[in-house]
Amino acid sequence: MRAEIVAVGTELLLGQNVDTNSGWIAQRLAESGIDCTHQVRVGDNVDRIADTLRIALSRADAAILTGGLGPTQDDLTREAIAKVAGVQLERDPDVMADIEAIFARRSRHMTESNRRQADVPVGATVIAQRLGTAPGLICPVGDQVVYALPGVPEEMKEMVVRAVLPDLRARSGETAVIASRVLRTWGLGESGLAELVAPRVDALEGGPPGAPTIAFLASGMEGIKVRVTVKTPDAASATAALDREEAALRELIGEGVFGTDEETMEQVVGELLTDRGLRLGLAESFTGGLIAARIVGVPGASRWFTGSVVAYDASVKRHILGVPDGPVVSAQAAVAMADGACRALGTDVALSTTGVAGPDPEEGLAPGTCFAGIALPGRTTEAVTLRLLGNRLQIREIATITALDTLRRRLLKLG
Amino acid sequence: MRAEIVAVGTELLLGQNVDTNSGWIAQRLAESGIDCTHQVRVGDNVDRIADTLRIALSRADAAILTGGLGPTQDDLTREAIAKVAGVQLERDPDVMADIEAIFARRSRHMTESNRRQADVPVGATVIAQRLGTAPGLICPVGDQVVYALPGVPEEMKEMVVRAVLPDLRARSGETAVIASRVLRTWGLGESGLAELVAPRVDALEGGPPGAPTIAFLASGMEGIKVRVTVKTPDAASATAALDREEAALRELIGEGVFGTDEETMEQVVGELLTDRGLRLGLAESFTGGLIAARIVGVPGASRWFTGSVVAYDASVKRHILGVPDGPVVSAQAAVAMADGACRALGTDVALSTTGVAGPDPEEGLAPGTCFAGIALPGRTTEAVTLRLLGNRLQIREIATITALDTLRRRLLKLG
Repeated sequence: MRAEIVAVGTELLLGQNVDTNSGWIAQRLAESGIDCTHQVRVGDNVDRIADTLRIALSRADAAILTGGLGPTQDDLTREAIAKVAGVQLERDPDVMADIEAIFARRSRHMTESNRRQADVPVGATVIAQRLGTAPGLICPVGDQVVYALPGVPEEMKEMVVRAVLPDLRARSGETAVIASRVLRTWGLGESGLAELVAPRVDALEGGPPGAPTIAFLASGMEGIKVRVTVKTPDAASATAALDREEAALRELIGEGVFGTDEETMEQVVGELLTDRGLRLGLAESFTGGLIAARIVGVPGASRWFTGSVVAYDASVKRHILGVPDGPVVSAQAAVAMADGACRALGTDVALSTTGVAGPDPEEGLAPGTCFAGIALPGRTTEAVTLRLLGNRLQIREIATITALDTLRRRLLKLG
Repeated sequence: MRAEIVAVGTELLLGQNVDTNSGWIAQRLAESGIDCTHQVRVGDNVDRIADTLRIALSRADAAILTGGLGPTQDDLTREAIAKVAGVQLERDPDVMADIEAIFARRSRHMTESNRRQADVPVGATVIAQRLGTAPGLICPVGDQVVYALPGVPEEMKEMVVRAVLPDLRARSGETAVIASRVLRTWGLGESGLAELVAPRVDALEGGPPGAPTIAFLASGMEGIKVRVTVKTPDAASATAALDREEAALRELIGEGVFGTDEETMEQVVGELLTDRGLRLGLAESFTGGLIAARIVGVPGASRWFTGSVVAYDASVKRHILGVPDGPVVSAQAAVAMADGACRALGTDVALSTTGVAGPDPEEGLAPGTCFAGIALPGRTTEAVTLRLLGNRLQIREIATITALDTLRRRLLKLG
């Protein structure tokens, strides 16, 4: 089974939006044992989209289109598919009703152009829209198939997982289960991590064909991911094999593993706090709300998070957090900020950050010099020093995760 | 003159490296008045690369390949071009000497595979390597041309500017300048925006050939971009034409335009505050630090931003911000939070947010119901009600930009 990906949109051709959709879809296809040999980007031109689609179907069993399903005149994916399939577009009353309902909920005026999003090639199956207004489409073309998906990543991803992959796997007759699990790590370099894991990698490569495979994915602010992939006859044996590999890898990597799959650092910290019946407060200087923003992204965070004092100006550090006179980018200031956060926010655990995001030095300290303060019940509040590399945004983001990771490791020791 | 871009490399297909080269080249082509209608990614397979190249030359005058020029066995771009051109590969003694010199300078051992990088299709012109070891190639195929460039962005870009664009422009005889400007908008739906701008679009489409073109780019949290593109004899007339179109579009869209090109909402708010000598404080509930995090991302924000009280827990709203008893997700609470932020953070301007991010209702209000409070000097503090759609993260992010946009519009009225 082979699928080709076609990204539609002049803005992609011009690099004004970077096309991350195609790579994401290709990864999901690979995990499902479906080959992808070509990816094409084409502009908003109905004939070029149609020709590109014909070429895709000449070398693949299926084509997955993203983009061009919007309401405007230059959204032409629907028309192009109808051309290639040799069918008409029909306005689908159910889709129409869905779109009308969405506009009603948003109490927004619905224009004629929005109605175009209800046009469906005859014979196509609709993938109901759950996040946006544009539905996806499954369009048979002879014994081949064309999928049309919105270009908005969240909408596209949800439809790929819910509708496209199951449909493709059913068509491919693939029965083996290919499953992966990702171990999320933080605080280890790629080469250091590779050395820790080397024994297991060697054992597997020396092992029987079809043995699990291990891959490293450096994923920026998501840390370095260690992905284990297994191919087994059924789901139960896949889970068992993944459990075995996870145990072996955790043995080798230890505390460096903070979670699995989609688990985030902030979720893990929240679970550790909840297990211990503790609530967290923050005092953020140069991270400027990034830590709080991540935490509030966790549903149910209100059970373990009260708030953050974003003390960007020194006066706020002094008045609300009670930081004494003297340098505000220092271990002492980080400690005072953490203690002040506990008082101001009424918590027994606090995490604080102060540092130099750059581009210029502050208080004689180079960009990337940061301090994280940690207040825990029954412990003396302490600060750790971080020396980070990168531009302003990178330094703030790395400091955000590293501060949370430091708190995670302290909470583990707290028992 | 039309050129097609082909990115070679299985790692691009799998999204392990995101292909940013193609978009960058496409922008340079556009600036040189050369059309680019397709971009293709193909894996490391000589026959697939050759077929992809043939298709490219069937619909374009030139093909620009990136990647596959390295020393390893899966670097097959040279072989594929030779196949399509119907010529042999010859080892070029000058290139060979260059490569040997590079290895000598790096005092690195040179393997036989490194010598493959000196193989050149008969009849091709070499683009000397200045940064890496792989030379670029200009390969005539009949009256068409194929350019082969390294996949390493820095090496590729240097060769495009130095050799490819001059060669393409010479072949095309193109002298026109193509330039674009993006108007950034917020608060208008794509279709609503299209209707506002329709008169101008119609006028231009009815106009002479070569008239400016207008395109809409829905860009999620960056709002909807309106891109104007002009093609003129020289840079000066391009700027004049863009200025004319910007003025015409601002006339139609009005306050909905918050900036141009790379300007962000938070930068614009910062400029408005700085111009008026005002400093901003925040009180964030369900946006949980997202507004502060964006603001601190603006270099020099310390001149106009003091901090944020992220009051996630009601107790923090009451104790630090002085929100009276009663519902905390309400217009009254938003007003009290804004006034409290001015007091706690010592500012004369404050922006507050309180709302329901979901997934569950709060205080009987549906997810997406939000209130933004705005305190301005000499004005009564007021709150606006927002009804937003999306998942938890989307609601918080849309609320973040919409709150900043509301402040922007109020500051404009402040004069």
